Amino acid sequence: MSDVIEQLQSITTHVDKAISEMLPIAYPDELYKASRYLPDAGGKRLRPATLVLAAQAVGSNLNDVLPAAVSVELVHNFTLIHDDIMDEDSFRRGMEAVHVKWGLAGAILAGDTLYSKAFEILAGMDNDPARLNKCIELLSQTCTQICEGQWMDIEFEHRDDVTKEEYLEMVEKKTSVLYAAAAKSGAILGGASDEVANSLYDFGRLIGVGFQIYDDVLDLITPEDVLGKVRGSDLMEGKKTLIALHAINNGVDLKIFGKGSAEKSEIEEAVKVLEESGSIDYAQELAFSYIQEGKEKLKVLPDSDSKATLLEIADYMIERKY
Amino acid sequence: MSDVIEQLQSITTHVDKAISEMLPIAYPDELYKASRYLPDAGGKRLRPATLVLAAQAVGSNLNDVLPAAVSVELVHNFTLIHDDIMDEDSFRRGMEAVHVKWGLAGAILAGDTLYSKAFEILAGMDNDPARLNKCIELLSQTCTQICEGQWMDIEFEHRDDVTKEEYLEMVEKKTSVLYAAAAKSGAILGGASDEVANSLYDFGRLIGVGFQIYDDVLDLITPEDVLGKVRGSDLMEGKKTLIALHAINNGVDLKIFGKGSAEKSEIEEAVKVLEESGSIDYAQELAFSYIQEGKEKLKVLPDSDSKATLLEIADYMIERKY
Repeated sequence: MSDVIEQLQSITTHVDKAISEMLPIAYPDELYKASRYLPDAGGKRLRPATLVLAAQAVGSNLNDVLPAAVSVELVHNFTLIHDDIMDEDSFRRGMEAVHVKWGLAGAILAGDTLYSKAFEILAGMDNDPARLNKCIELLSQTCTQICEGQWMDIEFEHRDDVTKEEYLEMVEKKTSVLYAAAAKSGAILGGASDEVANSLYDFGRLIGVGFQIYDDVLDLITPEDVLGKVRGSDLMEGKKTLIALHAINNGVDLKIFGKGSAEKSEIEEAVKVLEESGSIDYAQELAFSYIQEGKEKLKVLPDSDSKATLLEIADYMIERKY
Repeated sequence: MSDVIEQLQSITTHVDKAISEMLPIAYPDELYKASRYLPDAGGKRLRPATLVLAAQAVGSNLNDVLPAAVSVELVHNFTLIHDDIMDEDSFRRGMEAVHVKWGLAGAILAGDTLYSKAFEILAGMDNDPARLNKCIELLSQTCTQICEGQWMDIEFEHRDDVTKEEYLEMVEKKTSVLYAAAAKSGAILGGASDEVANSLYDFGRLIGVGFQIYDDVLDLITPEDVLGKVRGSDLMEGKKTLIALHAINNGVDLKIFGKGSAEKSEIEEAVKVLEESGSIDYAQELAFSYIQEGKEKLKVLPDSDSKATLLEIADYMIERKY
């Protein structure tokens, strides 16, 4: 386990416990079992941890913002359940996807339930109503953007003219706005000024984009046994990642692009070609610069352990192995 | 058009206009077209009208609560889109369902977008933060209950031992809590006391249950050209309506129950059998008593035109022909 993930243990333990308490198995039991299935399977809890650390960094504490942390984690899991249906992915976190285990209707409803529970838990928090409303408005806007990002991602599959700017907008909406909302919500609930809250939003947004670009890099450079899925799967699926876009724009001949499957030797050749064309380096350097820019946004915060951990989360985005 | 629907015209015109303004077609356009497709197709707008009338009846006005009225209408439409996927219904309001026109992924995302937009619009309202917060918590709890009700409805299809109490709980969650939330939200935003707000909740809940029970009656007693769908379709689908439960409990032999399809003469015979067993009367009388009980809850309100229209909406639930 990486150092930062270990440091987050004390927060994630509280988040795990709070999920069980705030999303109890109630009647109809099977609906709640389907809703709890993914959140209970764990995950790194980077989004709720970011929220808690942001609150701590502006002078608040874990207990006062824990429900909001649960809320962003439930939103994240809701998007995973519905995305797996849309992308026809049968596995998630090494387990059967919710729609495989509970069927289409079950998965739609499990996602919808997490969605409403997220807002229920947030609205029911014991905090200043005006601050709470700001967070609710932010989270709902964020959910809308996630839908827009997922729509764009699906649309891009059928287009040959996706630009770098469009890719970055898609990634920002699909992935990074939830990190941004988590960081800003922590600041708002902790009573930070608008300036600090907005800087934390930018921090989350920038490291979220860096995270996703680096994810595309990991798909190519990570051995399969570490990655947990087939290496180069993005390439074979014809996903318009930044790496693929760079290669296409530079006239690189990617033989396996969009072919659905390929031999190990073909994948290795493709990775070599992408290394030589500078496409992997290009994406990796862009990811690094997003992380760097994100970290600079934290200059508005006074030094603290929590701030230090937020900076380590930013670095972790581009240091992690999977 | 019935008298009450005509009386609601001035409210529904505002609601229609507000939906266009608050849910503009933005990028990615096709997502917003899919999201707007059902709301734009009209409908009676009974839920937003109930919210506006409740607010007026406690001394507020249409303009001050219009966003909240749009919000409950969007939630209603979100549930219709996802329900049509789950129930594999291909038509809605005489048009192709969203999942038929935009595919599964498109319909899931269109529904999810309406869901988040509903909360975005509500949280962004210009009203007292504490009141807004109460409404958001209420609406999110309501959405959770709608999910529970839909889950129960699906589960009941595979069970032979559904009780009247379970049926009523399902109907309350799936249908009536949104009427209840609409009425109560109008009261809360209008500044009513908790006592008045809770009475309005009960009003909405009771007339909502009456509405749904009467819907099951209409399925049997309404000629097809008025109903817009095959008469007796609930029976043929084997739906455990209150009428079916009453008949089964009284040992009535319903030959076409759950048979998928039937000749016109068989349906007429089934209706006759259900009339003779008193099953239709039983449901009709129960619907009437719910409406009556609901109307009594409005005694907490001073007399006004808006109160009078709320009472007419209650009557309309069991007077309408479709």
